[in-house]
Amino acid sequence: MNAPDKFTSLLTLTREPFPASHKCVIPGSRPDLFVPVRDVQLTNGETVSLYDTSGPYTDPKVEIDVRRGLPDVRGPWIAERGDTESYEGRVHHALDDGAKNEDRDAQRLAELRAGASALQRTPRRAKSGSNVTQMHYARRGIVTPEMEYVALRENGKREWMAEYLANEERAKRVAGNPMGASIPRIITPEFVRDEVARGRAIIPANINHPEVEPMAIGRNFKVKINANIGNSAVTSSIEEEVEKLVWAIRWGADNVMDLSTGKNIHTTRDWIVRNSPVPIGTVPIYQALEKVGGVAEDLTWEIYRDTLIEQAEQGVDYFTIHAGLRLPFIHLTANRMTGIVSRGGSIMAKWCIAHHKESFLYTHFEDICDIMKAYDVSFSLGDGLRPGSGADANDEAQFAELRTLGELTQVAWKHDVQTMIEGPGHVPMHMIQSNMDEQLKHCHEAPFYTLGPLTIDIAPGYDHIASAIGAAMIGWAGTAMLCYVTPKEHLGLPDRDDVKQGIIAYKIAAHAADVAKGHPGARSRDDALSKARFEFRWQDQFNLGLDPDTAREFHDETLPKDSSKVAHFCSMCGPKFCSMKITQEVREYAAKKGVAEDQAMSEGMEEKSKEFMAGGGEMYIPIKAVP
Amino acid sequence: MNAPDKFTSLLTLTREPFPASHKCVIPGSRPDLFVPVRDVQLTNGETVSLYDTSGPYTDPKVEIDVRRGLPDVRGPWIAERGDTESYEGRVHHALDDGAKNEDRDAQRLAELRAGASALQRTPRRAKSGSNVTQMHYARRGIVTPEMEYVALRENGKREWMAEYLANEERAKRVAGNPMGASIPRIITPEFVRDEVARGRAIIPANINHPEVEPMAIGRNFKVKINANIGNSAVTSSIEEEVEKLVWAIRWGADNVMDLSTGKNIHTTRDWIVRNSPVPIGTVPIYQALEKVGGVAEDLTWEIYRDTLIEQAEQGVDYFTIHAGLRLPFIHLTANRMTGIVSRGGSIMAKWCIAHHKESFLYTHFEDICDIMKAYDVSFSLGDGLRPGSGADANDEAQFAELRTLGELTQVAWKHDVQTMIEGPGHVPMHMIQSNMDEQLKHCHEAPFYTLGPLTIDIAPGYDHIASAIGAAMIGWAGTAMLCYVTPKEHLGLPDRDDVKQGIIAYKIAAHAADVAKGHPGARSRDDALSKARFEFRWQDQFNLGLDPDTAREFHDETLPKDSSKVAHFCSMCGPKFCSMKITQEVREYAAKKGVAEDQAMSEGMEEKSKEFMAGGGEMYIPIKAVP
Repeated sequence: MNAPDKFTSLLTLTREPFPASHKCVIPGSRPDLFVPVRDVQLTNGETVSLYDTSGPYTDPKVEIDVRRGLPDVRGPWIAERGDTESYEGRVHHALDDGAKNEDRDAQRLAELRAGASALQRTPRRAKSGSNVTQMHYARRGIVTPEMEYVALRENGKREWMAEYLANEERAKRVAGNPMGASIPRIITPEFVRDEVARGRAIIPANINHPEVEPMAIGRNFKVKINANIGNSAVTSSIEEEVEKLVWAIRWGADNVMDLSTGKNIHTTRDWIVRNSPVPIGTVPIYQALEKVGGVAEDLTWEIYRDTLIEQAEQGVDYFTIHAGLRLPFIHLTANRMTGIVSRGGSIMAKWCIAHHKESFLYTHFEDICDIMKAYDVSFSLGDGLRPGSGADANDEAQFAELRTLGELTQVAWKHDVQTMIEGPGHVPMHMIQSNMDEQLKHCHEAPFYTLGPLTIDIAPGYDHIASAIGAAMIGWAGTAMLCYVTPKEHLGLPDRDDVKQGIIAYKIAAHAADVAKGHPGARSRDDALSKARFEFRWQDQFNLGLDPDTAREFHDETLPKDSSKVAHFCSMCGPKFCSMKITQEVREYAAKKGVAEDQAMSEGMEEKSKEFMAGGGEMYIPIKAVP
Repeated sequence: MNAPDKFTSLLTLTREPFPASHKCVIPGSRPDLFVPVRDVQLTNGETVSLYDTSGPYTDPKVEIDVRRGLPDVRGPWIAERGDTESYEGRVHHALDDGAKNEDRDAQRLAELRAGASALQRTPRRAKSGSNVTQMHYARRGIVTPEMEYVALRENGKREWMAEYLANEERAKRVAGNPMGASIPRIITPEFVRDEVARGRAIIPANINHPEVEPMAIGRNFKVKINANIGNSAVTSSIEEEVEKLVWAIRWGADNVMDLSTGKNIHTTRDWIVRNSPVPIGTVPIYQALEKVGGVAEDLTWEIYRDTLIEQAEQGVDYFTIHAGLRLPFIHLTANRMTGIVSRGGSIMAKWCIAHHKESFLYTHFEDICDIMKAYDVSFSLGDGLRPGSGADANDEAQFAELRTLGELTQVAWKHDVQTMIEGPGHVPMHMIQSNMDEQLKHCHEAPFYTLGPLTIDIAPGYDHIASAIGAAMIGWAGTAMLCYVTPKEHLGLPDRDDVKQGIIAYKIAAHAADVAKGHPGARSRDDALSKARFEFRWQDQFNLGLDPDTAREFHDETLPKDSSKVAHFCSMCGPKFCSMKITQEVREYAAKKGVAEDQAMSEGMEEKSKEFMAGGGEMYIPIKAVP
């Protein structure tokens, strides 16, 4: 293993800004509240401002030292609320990095641990009797800085809107079909508060993750995407994982889940959380299982509880908890094509069967709520019984669990704990809408967070595409966050390029959903790019795209010369003939002559056509009528 | 340019069969009628039979010499109908290969022409007064061998159906939502005849393309895909184009359009048609434009007509003809974001404007029909006014043209000419369904053939994905054929890998549509792959996928050892823990104990839950009820 080289690569994180882009901020109501956006400078003098998930990494002015972690964004806001206290925190156990020590490189781990403990913050928690969730504040009418941050971030710079609103017809066209969503033209902090209060949106922001740039997950906000990273028993290393984080948010991951299951699991998480400007989610049962040597039946509530506190202290923003997978549902999977495919789900199923007992996640759900509200960790209620193939989609096992997640949502809300609901999985197109309908019906509009869904099962190697189709559709239907699928799904662990491919596919799906829903502002980027395309502003076309590097590279393959970047043609038709160019002539034509006459001809034709249709007589052949 | 090397590569076409696959045939009612399918041999002894577009190239038993062309499939069928005659054909003009000779490698062209003329068949046409279209036969009640071929091909080997029909519940689930399609469980030759007779399906099969393996395009058949190839003024060569054809059909292109616009355009087509087992489409105006040196206003009906006959004699199976782009519609594009983006559309718009005259394609439409029916060339009525951006989607220009295409369809049908309708383009998700609705309403169920549509505009470099989303949705809604988009769309000319990427993305979209529509048999492949996945039959999982090579390669990256191909784990969870493995334990559990008890517990919970809901009282906390 060439670990030292990989470690070095961590110290040279991808830091280049995007082409023709610079980081700007939208100032808020207080000097320590400003929301970063990416401004793309076009060659025609215009600027397009984009939602930016990449954090300080794309800002060359910011010095970053991964050994110290990112700057504190929310510290003062948390402190001034006066409802938290710092405390010594849980004592670090050897087991936290997994039970199996024998195969570890002791020296390297010691080195990494040393780095991680320099990173570790003194944990905070709610003072006794306090509840520090954003939902709790929201329900008491408090607009937190986090809520204002989200409002500013969702709006972006809305200069473009003036133009849109001026053009009634375009505004109508851009309106989309919101499919039941209610997205206001301008997102106010008060709107954010209201959405969080009623549980229709969450702001995952653990008080121990002050580095996070707040964001919202909810159907009345932009559709978000999640990327998974994580080591594994088979391959990967901590260094790779942190670099994957930076890489994932560069391309647009709004959230990142650390799904590590192998060695150094605690230490990996320290590195990731301290260096992450986006919310981090985990599946705590993975680590708990490591602590009992991988033997599911040896899991206990105490070990699990301790793991929740460990991760909450580290700053994890949301936990996937498969509390809806109940003992009575397990037998419903027996006749499935592909059984239980959720890893967390199968761990709990195994435990339930071994003990013939109800899941301890279910029986201790209120105890879990008590932990969540002390740190503001959000629930991501896991779908342990999601279908693993189209054949198992929407079956009784899946929906029995979903209804239970709805019950648990009400329990969580009783504690003011922010909650979202995980969804499938593998679902053919015609069965997607009913997933959304069932979720809305049973889960009281808590945000839906789906994995894909994959619309077919025959595309191993291309499941990012098979699932982007389902993701776009369910995003339009109201899903708030889409968990990405990479080309390696079902086959292996994603590498750097796979992560990027998965993210871009999901940015496409999420954006397609925003456009279809009529999210205000979603279309401005499309329109700017289309205009650039029409006007042969090649550089602008590349720079406004989701991946300027690849667009430019593809263009260069056919026409590498710099001069062709300003040429009024492209490689599809060549220099001699260009359809876009001809359109410009059409405009001149339409502007100066012939139109009235054409219009008359058009109306005449239509008239004759109608006469024919009405008469039911011999076919009217328009050809004859033309001089 | 290294042309000789490229030429050599033509002589070593991709000929390997797919892994674990061999070519089989389904015999028809006569000895010269047998339909090839690809049988995949699974490691558990089962066989899965797949629709196969790859022609003889994947059959190692067939000797192929591209200089002689493929074996004749339909010759005897055409001859025995006795309604055609062979004739000398049109005299070859120097202009047929384009007007600009100065930059040509004369020696190479001569060499290529020599090869092509060895290939050229003596053309046939309908005897005077005859009509040789499949629609004409269909309407007279004749079931042609082509129709029987299509029926056998669409059915495939339906052994699997017995199992499905036995399981009522699964049959119900597999039924899908046909969205108005009426797909019978078994496709009979008579059903094919009826669909062709009423114009709801076409069988593109020029009598001068006897090498074609007949296939149908219609909403009650499997959704098909088209791949575009073609040289260009800027790059590419004939050799590359023929290799692209073989490559395209290998990965599943049901049709291929030759969109050559540059040099050697006639000769390229000879090579392609003679070596193609799939229908070939063209846009004849491209070649006509070359004949007039690229000056649109110099086009005449005579030059165009001559080009139609030239290409019909060569064996082109369908022509894209932009006859619905009428002079009175042109001004409707003046205020568009991206004007006219169809190349054929803009050529005709330029001609109409320059002459201030109605399009000669429109005024001579019946003359065109006369040519089509003499060779059985099908119409692909072009959408010259399709939107080039989401901003222009579904506007008056687009729909005015669509309505005209509907009128022209009725004219074509008066002549028994097979017709399909081209569609967009760039359409946000929420505007896709109304494209299908308008098309069905105005075009009398003639097959719809759309380009994507692209759901967003901000994904240059990934437009195969942005458009696969729209393609899947419109395919489900009833579109019969999806024209692929490659990752190079808007940026450059697709190379070999781009063609493959575009095709796989579109196979995914088409298959997702088939599954959603409930096409009988579509899901059998998904189910076989899912079963293989669940049973850790890795080789079967790869081999049943759309691209076995990539799936295997991805798996090897993480777990290269041969032993891991039979291992009961994968790289995602590692050897220690596997969710699929646990499911097997669940089955044992469900089979032997505890289930009745669980069931009772489940029902009890539900009861209590209902009580709570009905009472509207204090939150029912299920936790307390569990022992």
